[in-house]
Amino acid sequence: MPYFDAASSLPLHPVARQALAAAWEDGWADPARLHREGRRARMLLDAARESAAELAGCRPDELVLTSSGTRALHTGIAGALAGRRRAGRHLVVSSVEHSAVLAAAEAHEKTGGTVASVPVGRNGRVDVAAFAAAVRGAPADSRGTALACLQSANHEVGTEQPVAEAAQECRAAGVPLLVDAAQSLPWGPVAGDWSLLAASAHKWGGPAGVGLLVVRKGVRFAPVPPVDERESGRAAGFPDIPGVVAAAASLRAVRQEAAAEAERLRCLVDRLRTRIPELVPDTEVVGDPVRRLPHLVTFSCLYADGEALLHALDREGFAVSSGSSCTAATLVPSHVLRAMGVLSEGNIRVSLPPGTAEADVDRLLTVLPEAVASVRAQLSAPDTATRPPTGDGPDDAPEAAREPRDLTVDSLGRRCPIPVIELAKAIGQVPVGGVVTVLADDEAARLDIPAWCGMRGQEYLGEEAAPAGSAYRVRRRA
Amino acid sequence: MPYFDAASSLPLHPVARQALAAAWEDGWADPARLHREGRRARMLLDAARESAAELAGCRPDELVLTSSGTRALHTGIAGALAGRRRAGRHLVVSSVEHSAVLAAAEAHEKTGGTVASVPVGRNGRVDVAAFAAAVRGAPADSRGTALACLQSANHEVGTEQPVAEAAQECRAAGVPLLVDAAQSLPWGPVAGDWSLLAASAHKWGGPAGVGLLVVRKGVRFAPVPPVDERESGRAAGFPDIPGVVAAAASLRAVRQEAAAEAERLRCLVDRLRTRIPELVPDTEVVGDPVRRLPHLVTFSCLYADGEALLHALDREGFAVSSGSSCTAATLVPSHVLRAMGVLSEGNIRVSLPPGTAEADVDRLLTVLPEAVASVRAQLSAPDTATRPPTGDGPDDAPEAAREPRDLTVDSLGRRCPIPVIELAKAIGQVPVGGVVTVLADDEAARLDIPAWCGMRGQEYLGEEAAPAGSAYRVRRRA
Repeated sequence: MPYFDAASSLPLHPVARQALAAAWEDGWADPARLHREGRRARMLLDAARESAAELAGCRPDELVLTSSGTRALHTGIAGALAGRRRAGRHLVVSSVEHSAVLAAAEAHEKTGGTVASVPVGRNGRVDVAAFAAAVRGAPADSRGTALACLQSANHEVGTEQPVAEAAQECRAAGVPLLVDAAQSLPWGPVAGDWSLLAASAHKWGGPAGVGLLVVRKGVRFAPVPPVDERESGRAAGFPDIPGVVAAAASLRAVRQEAAAEAERLRCLVDRLRTRIPELVPDTEVVGDPVRRLPHLVTFSCLYADGEALLHALDREGFAVSSGSSCTAATLVPSHVLRAMGVLSEGNIRVSLPPGTAEADVDRLLTVLPEAVASVRAQLSAPDTATRPPTGDGPDDAPEAAREPRDLTVDSLGRRCPIPVIELAKAIGQVPVGGVVTVLADDEAARLDIPAWCGMRGQEYLGEEAAPAGSAYRVRRRA
Repeated sequence: MPYFDAASSLPLHPVARQALAAAWEDGWADPARLHREGRRARMLLDAARESAAELAGCRPDELVLTSSGTRALHTGIAGALAGRRRAGRHLVVSSVEHSAVLAAAEAHEKTGGTVASVPVGRNGRVDVAAFAAAVRGAPADSRGTALACLQSANHEVGTEQPVAEAAQECRAAGVPLLVDAAQSLPWGPVAGDWSLLAASAHKWGGPAGVGLLVVRKGVRFAPVPPVDERESGRAAGFPDIPGVVAAAASLRAVRQEAAAEAERLRCLVDRLRTRIPELVPDTEVVGDPVRRLPHLVTFSCLYADGEALLHALDREGFAVSSGSSCTAATLVPSHVLRAMGVLSEGNIRVSLPPGTAEADVDRLLTVLPEAVASVRAQLSAPDTATRPPTGDGPDDAPEAAREPRDLTVDSLGRRCPIPVIELAKAIGQVPVGGVVTVLADDEAARLDIPAWCGMRGQEYLGEEAAPAGSAYRVRRRA
């Protein structure tokens, strides 16, 4: 049963299991204690820290062991902001950072700081010049930029960010750059002159409950109270030494295969990127096709329900994830897809774990077209192969006979992808030049109606506030 | 090799090992995902939460899973303080709480809150009336008490706190009580009408990296940003599901033996409490002799160096801990011993793990006298059996011949227990009624000189600021 949600979490690597079981014997005592059991625990912790630091590309005393990648990000951002409070209160992030970074940015705003969110292109990449301008462009009342954050690669669409170039710009501006390396660290160390880095062990087959935070020597860092004596005051609480040992051991094991496995998975993902749009009509593959993570591809299917699609694939034995609004507790499409301005309905992320069999990827290509078709059929989606009818629609009637020329579709209370499906059906009911207004209160409509217009060559006129929800106006062009 | 530092951490319980290995198979995926692997992880997490909640004495939706006991305390205190910000900004703690509570209290003060630290008696117990008065006595500028914290039992001396009575007083005052149950939860649920509770799995043989935080329904609680969607916003980061499963399973296993094991260990500790002062001269057993944890005893040895004693016992194969200043990074004696006003030098905590063999306890009693004697000999400590000399000392000389009547001992720069040893030697050099002034800058002297006076029947006159350190004045009485 192929598990294609590696970007979310991986099963424990066999090396991690061995390391855990071995470390249970000697790694359970308090490493701060002076007795034999404490000293043994301390030696294990020191050795694991050294190993993990080497793989992360830092010195052992620059590595802080946290209880998760999220905690590493929260701690790193808060500590760097507090340490550089005198330098300023401005924080720069890309608009496609992990939600843990965006939550930390929100928290910063709540305490009076300012935040700039640097936009990305349709491929999901930030522009280095725009990032540098944001770093140098702190609002006057914030005095200066305390910290900038940029992921090494995006967790939802796989696009690699220009981290080394951004780090250079930050260095020139005297601002530390924090890199969220959660998705890329299993594949290799992060290049460039960054200042802080965060990662999470369960993303490479290490155990849950272990995060890495690197704080380079020389970075001003003030731990946010309450603190204790653990990890030089930078991560409170009794350390999970077996977890850290297993995290380091499994990262080393994964890295040994990384170059070969990256090449192999890159080819498999290329196959998916090429074949999916050929096999499944009206599908948009998103994210940068070249500068990307080796193992991850994301696409969206017009007129499809992401949750239904995910379940359909699950029934076929494929575990994938989705950034569609229907799969989120908030009923809002993924902020990454929104920032990129791409279609969010019927969204699927496929992320291949190391060792993925070629046959399983091919089988996904076999079952996907039918899975999408069945979901579309359930929603009575328009035939994706056809365009607005030209033979029997009102636009064949004489101009004068048309009444009404425009049409309003009420999709209030209907969830993605229904508003887009109703728009697609209605567009054939108005003549070329006519306008369809869709009333919708589903958040995904804001993203998917313009995206549909782009895919269908129709003209998106914009959004207006309506008594309930919003009114989206689309002019028929063809 | 007997490990007698159970209060610090325990090796993994065999049940925890089995649970971990089993949960590795199904508990590694993201429980928030909709696919098969996610659903399996979710089911494991739900089952473990239900089990742990039952053992903690709460509903499953009242239990928050955190990454450590420290994190549970930090999160619980910050969340309750923020949730009750309108009620007031005052926090009440006992003076012998775990350092994680005291650090959270300090953090609260730094953001403008007020804190009352309720003193304890020489047995380490808070007085309920004093605690209630502190809860009702918020300073005017704090408006009211937001939260009170009281441990179920002290981690250093084992004294049980009157939690049920304190909870009743808090309930009457409309103030939530948070109970740090880290030391007692393995022995049983905490009685009384408390509002929040924190505990840590590695204290009962569960894995490191799992803390429990109970927040009763109805308690106002506002998670402190940044938050994520995990644990209802109350504990951010990817959950360690195998850890939680193992924590619940091992707590259940430990509880099944708890009543019988508590009775057995209580007898062994009683034996230690009785025999140690008989076998080792000038030793003070501290903590309540009756209302106490079953497995823990703490004592201090006059004229002994805690670190040296700890190493001497370690060489004999006994792992214990110490609250002496020489074993702390800060060179300050344990705040618990300070709050109790008891001797801190030569301090040793013995905490017996479940299953401790009677023979090992007896062997400790066999080696302890020699271990203490050897440490005292290294320090050239006065003979503990004797009192100030009466046959050849200056106090036998005619009154008029004595010069000087008083004496000053310079112990500046000398660490515990040297200042007390020098005082003990000097006291015989002055006549009855004469005064010895000890100049010392070691923090432990502040605690240990008055304690020595109490043990020796000498009169402690007080402490004065000196050009360097402090001057402690003692009048010879006998």
